[in-house]
Amino acid sequence: MSSKLMYRTLRPVLSSSGLGVGPGIRGHVISHLSTVRFLSSSDTSSPVSGNNQPEKPVQTADGKVISTYWGIPPAKITKPDGSAWKWNCFQPWDSYKPDVSIDVTKHHKPSNFTDKFAYWTVQTLKIPVQLFFQRKHMCHAMLLETVAAVPGMVGGMLLHLKSLRRFEHSGGWIKALLEEAENERMHLMTFIELSQPKWYERAIVFTVQGVFFNAYFLAYVISPKLAHRITGYLEEEAVNSYTEFLKDIDAGKFENSPAPAIAIDYWRLPKDATLRDVVYVIRADEAHHRDINHYASDIQFKGHELKEAPAPIGYH
Amino acid sequence: MSSKLMYRTLRPVLSSSGLGVGPGIRGHVISHLSTVRFLSSSDTSSPVSGNNQPEKPVQTADGKVISTYWGIPPAKITKPDGSAWKWNCFQPWDSYKPDVSIDVTKHHKPSNFTDKFAYWTVQTLKIPVQLFFQRKHMCHAMLLETVAAVPGMVGGMLLHLKSLRRFEHSGGWIKALLEEAENERMHLMTFIELSQPKWYERAIVFTVQGVFFNAYFLAYVISPKLAHRITGYLEEEAVNSYTEFLKDIDAGKFENSPAPAIAIDYWRLPKDATLRDVVYVIRADEAHHRDINHYASDIQFKGHELKEAPAPIGYH
Ligand SMILES: [Fe+2]
Ligand SMILES: [Fe+2]
Ligand SMILES: [Fe+2]
Ligand SMILES: [Fe+2]
Repeated sequence: MSSKLMYRTLRPVLSSSGLGVGPGIRGHVISHLSTVRFLSSSDTSSPVSGNNQPEKPVQTADGKVISTYWGIPPAKITKPDGSAWKWNCFQPWDSYKPDVSIDVTKHHKPSNFTDKFAYWTVQTLKIPVQLFFQRKHMCHAMLLETVAAVPGMVGGMLLHLKSLRRFEHSGGWIKALLEEAENERMHLMTFIELSQPKWYERAIVFTVQGVFFNAYFLAYVISPKLAHRITGYLEEEAVNSYTEFLKDIDAGKFENSPAPAIAIDYWRLPKDATLRDVVYVIRADEAHHRDINHYASDIQFKGHELKEAPAPIGYH
Repeated sequence: MSSKLMYRTLRPVLSSSGLGVGPGIRGHVISHLSTVRFLSSSDTSSPVSGNNQPEKPVQTADGKVISTYWGIPPAKITKPDGSAWKWNCFQPWDSYKPDVSIDVTKHHKPSNFTDKFAYWTVQTLKIPVQLFFQRKHMCHAMLLETVAAVPGMVGGMLLHLKSLRRFEHSGGWIKALLEEAENERMHLMTFIELSQPKWYERAIVFTVQGVFFNAYFLAYVISPKLAHRITGYLEEEAVNSYTEFLKDIDAGKFENSPAPAIAIDYWRLPKDATLRDVVYVIRADEAHHRDINHYASDIQFKGHELKEAPAPIGYH
């Protein structure tokens, strides 16, 4: 068992302390962390080498069993109430309490040709998107997130390859961008609990991903500062569209259903959280992505490389 | 300030407790974590919107200052002795104590056509590599790591795109594979502290990355189980080549110089650790990668999808 994992089993001490941390921490994070238990990884290294006998059967989510010689035993993680941690796609330590105090109206005024090109690209893309979705917020959010999770992954991957090729550090930017991609994927995982995509939505996503992945990849290779600026503006629009979503929930035009369990666990929301709370924290996430991407673009506009400025890791 | 970050400031309670955790934890992780301080992220959201005035100047590693309206203040992280945390490319909570008890001789016997194809592909690639490097271990290790960091990134990215396209969970495999890529990149960051690449080594890496990235990408699209099996065998060979490295250090054929600072911080090694300790923990990492990749291949050979079996996250 690596001590990183053991570290996560220390709650009793933390919670019995009179430490001046908010209830959010005591009540949520650390209580999630409280009963995290991992099987010792030394259990997995068998004394027998060089044979492929099934050894440790692994049970899948739906109760099926996978036998494999390599059977790395799955982590046993339980919540404070003793129930099992339900999610494999994220772990208790990936969850966080978002900073909702962030300014959601901030806008980067385009000040040079690249900025203007990025801005008008996004404004032009917005028109057919708004016409298509109108006030179908759930459908809009779901398809938006499948696209929004692409730039962070493309940027992170390209910076990773560059770091290897040039034998140089990344300044944490690989991680920061991959964190963004993961966060966007969690937005999508949240929305699919509330709505199932129709066949033509799947077809749209399939096509849009193919086009957008390649276009963004190319843009990032040619001009990372343009690519980050475009993402910055896309995030500004994401903030706007979630503001519209919130307005319609508040006006009673959209049902404020209970928040899905995955969202409650990921953003450490109260048990009775609603869709409004979820959209509210997702909007705060988008505002953070906006800052990260405009910042990345600014650094390069000022003639620096990303690796020269420490990346905003864990900026939620 | 998100509570995830605040969480990392809680050492005093942890270290003053009589909790039965090993000295590795008390002495290293948590002492790293002890004085972690983040500026409140609410400091970064300005009351002024919509203008691009420089606001918070950001200082780069070499003392240069970047002014940006988006200036997300860099995290202030210090080590227990009061000195600044030196690394932007990884954070204290990315460090870990590797499980060196793992069996480094384990081998997956190829049992079907795909296995044999993967095995002989790697055995064939090995011949020119061994002829080229012979006993130039440092050069070998450095170039090996630039290649080894590719599969995890390609696999993680393709699973991420698949998760988005299919509106489905990943079972944690995206994260597990990206963790592997990051770990390999840290191996490289360690070796570049000990040796600087020559121009022809840079040229080789440039070419090899171009070819290998595309080849592996294609292999993963066509047959993920083949791709993971190939990586499994590559990792077996990585383990073997580090075993040779260790033998030559022990035989006095290779100077056992002090471990670089980055390695001491990343693997939580003692201050007087040597190159041998570093190679020893890196070999353990490779053995873990071997398990993860053979496991990923096994799952698919048994007719399951990766997402059905929980991914070995944090398996070091
Ligand atoms: Fe999003
Ligand atoms: Fe976003
Ligand atoms: Fe490696
Ligand atoms: Fe490896």
